[in-house]
Amino acid sequence: MINIVIDTLGGDNGAPAAVEGAVKGLKNNPDVKLYLTGKKKELDQLLSGYTYDKKRLEVVDCSEEITCHDAPVEAVKKKKDSSLVVGLNLVKEGKADAFISAGSSGAVLAGGSLIIGRAKGVKRTPLAPLLPTSEGMSLLIDCGANVDAKPEVLVQFAQMGSIYMENIMGVKKPRVAIVNIGTEEEKGNALVKETFPLLKACKSINFIGSIESREIPFGKADVILTEAFVGNVILKLYEGLSKMILKEIKKSMMKTLKSKIGALMIKKSLKATLSNFNASNKGGAPLLGLKHGLLVKVHGNSKDEEFASAVLQCRNFVKTDVSGKIIEGLAKEENTAE
Amino acid sequence: MINIVIDTLGGDNGAPAAVEGAVKGLKNNPDVKLYLTGKKKELDQLLSGYTYDKKRLEVVDCSEEITCHDAPVEAVKKKKDSSLVVGLNLVKEGKADAFISAGSSGAVLAGGSLIIGRAKGVKRTPLAPLLPTSEGMSLLIDCGANVDAKPEVLVQFAQMGSIYMENIMGVKKPRVAIVNIGTEEEKGNALVKETFPLLKACKSINFIGSIESREIPFGKADVILTEAFVGNVILKLYEGLSKMILKEIKKSMMKTLKSKIGALMIKKSLKATLSNFNASNKGGAPLLGLKHGLLVKVHGNSKDEEFASAVLQCRNFVKTDVSGKIIEGLAKEENTAE
Repeated sequence: MINIVIDTLGGDNGAPAAVEGAVKGLKNNPDVKLYLTGKKKELDQLLSGYTYDKKRLEVVDCSEEITCHDAPVEAVKKKKDSSLVVGLNLVKEGKADAFISAGSSGAVLAGGSLIIGRAKGVKRTPLAPLLPTSEGMSLLIDCGANVDAKPEVLVQFAQMGSIYMENIMGVKKPRVAIVNIGTEEEKGNALVKETFPLLKACKSINFIGSIESREIPFGKADVILTEAFVGNVILKLYEGLSKMILKEIKKSMMKTLKSKIGALMIKKSLKATLSNFNASNKGGAPLLGLKHGLLVKVHGNSKDEEFASAVLQCRNFVKTDVSGKIIEGLAKEENTAE
Repeated sequence: MINIVIDTLGGDNGAPAAVEGAVKGLKNNPDVKLYLTGKKKELDQLLSGYTYDKKRLEVVDCSEEITCHDAPVEAVKKKKDSSLVVGLNLVKEGKADAFISAGSSGAVLAGGSLIIGRAKGVKRTPLAPLLPTSEGMSLLIDCGANVDAKPEVLVQFAQMGSIYMENIMGVKKPRVAIVNIGTEEEKGNALVKETFPLLKACKSINFIGSIESREIPFGKADVILTEAFVGNVILKLYEGLSKMILKEIKKSMMKTLKSKIGALMIKKSLKATLSNFNASNKGGAPLLGLKHGLLVKVHGNSKDEEFASAVLQCRNFVKTDVSGKIIEGLAKEENTAE
């Protein structure tokens, strides 16, 4: 049985979305047991509206909540009975294998480092979501809290990202590219210029050079390496721009009677395409490099679908032992370097 | 008469695209005279295929070309008879009011500073394209060559961008926001954290705080302030992602007979929407803060439409005296500060 915690507080859609997603996740994954951390009274009431395997779902009562207005590190240290801290402790104690939250990114990331801790040799723990491209999926690493990162940290992110893509996504020799403002080697800011030769010298990755952001949507690399500030800008622009364009297209289709009829006729084909760009199918972003267990951050405005996808993703992560493979891969790399 | 130079070399589509755009621009703007810098023989041959007002178009022969493989500063200094340097000298000498190029960004930017020079008080010259949003247009400043910029440089960019949006785009009290990874004041990397209080203290701008990149496409600010590396990533991702999504949507419409018929019915409405996201209608990005004259960088793969739009944009820039207004606005700000 794979044990997964869902933090039911902190997301924009509250416990109802988390609970509905949990029930769906439970139904789709018969080898999963879920722990829901949050307000027992509310959770019991919500759960009473569903039919589910009661042996595989346990509610863990918590009296506190961490919100995005809390200072992350302080909140994790002080709010010991929050749904986030209680949930992470279940992972720390080995009672659970994975943890899912739609709460404050900062607090989730801080909690990962402070409560579970980094694996041996891991300099920083990057947040690495998958981006939909015209060719499939690319891993964007890092979108987390490590702003103003150092070159050697980025090199390790490239290694972790490669291990992830190879072992979890089944990509052979994943192509690693660093986000840059041109493809010529002399281009870039200080960080990119310093990191570039280190990546070239790193034998355990398949470094293909710089990537300009316009090439990212066309799947020109499997691991898109960048420091967290730029990664965050890329991730959120991807989300916002897709949403805006799709909204404008839908609006344009509702303009005339003719276009409305046309819209009905393309609806089915269009829907299949659009669902490719729907982040809710992607199952959230894993925080890589933890000592043990898994931490998956889903979007703040996640609905039931996102939670259910995250449960499936966590299950697959545990089955393929992504954390173990990263620790193993980094250790191997270190031995080669010595 | 407004005199505009078009650099016919350096772009991906070569002189044919530039010449076709020039002829269109000439036709649409009866108060414009064009200088085409490039290879006279080729240009004369291309021009012989068009009917145009010969009194308003002059070919300036050049023996050299600057490509994107040249180191920018060195190329500008050494290739004195290149289409880029010859063109910029026409502006420097006052023979032309504006200059358009699809050539190497680095060389165009370096040429602007080295040949024309910065206006008094201007610390750096930012490249500031307009981004299409669901509400109209926002100015993205800076996308140029000033990577790893200093906080005080960003503040001046915010001022220049505000002057531009107010005077050229007619936006009253343009909302300035700095690109950040969260909207809370304590979020950000070192540069954003240092710049934020300076922007708050700057009385000549309407600073509204941080903007997350997901809000940019929805027009939540008029001036999107960021250092050039991030700006370049935003600009190119905007371009690449729009292109990829539209391509996938078109592909999805061609899947079945039914969806093909549907596609025909929505074609007209859809086309109007899509043209909003077509960079070719935007007329390129101006380099702000030059001593005099104008420099407009159009996309490397510009076609005739982009060159024609750039001619119109340059004409409007000269008419509204954007350079003069920026110099004036910055001087006013400096006097207030003293």
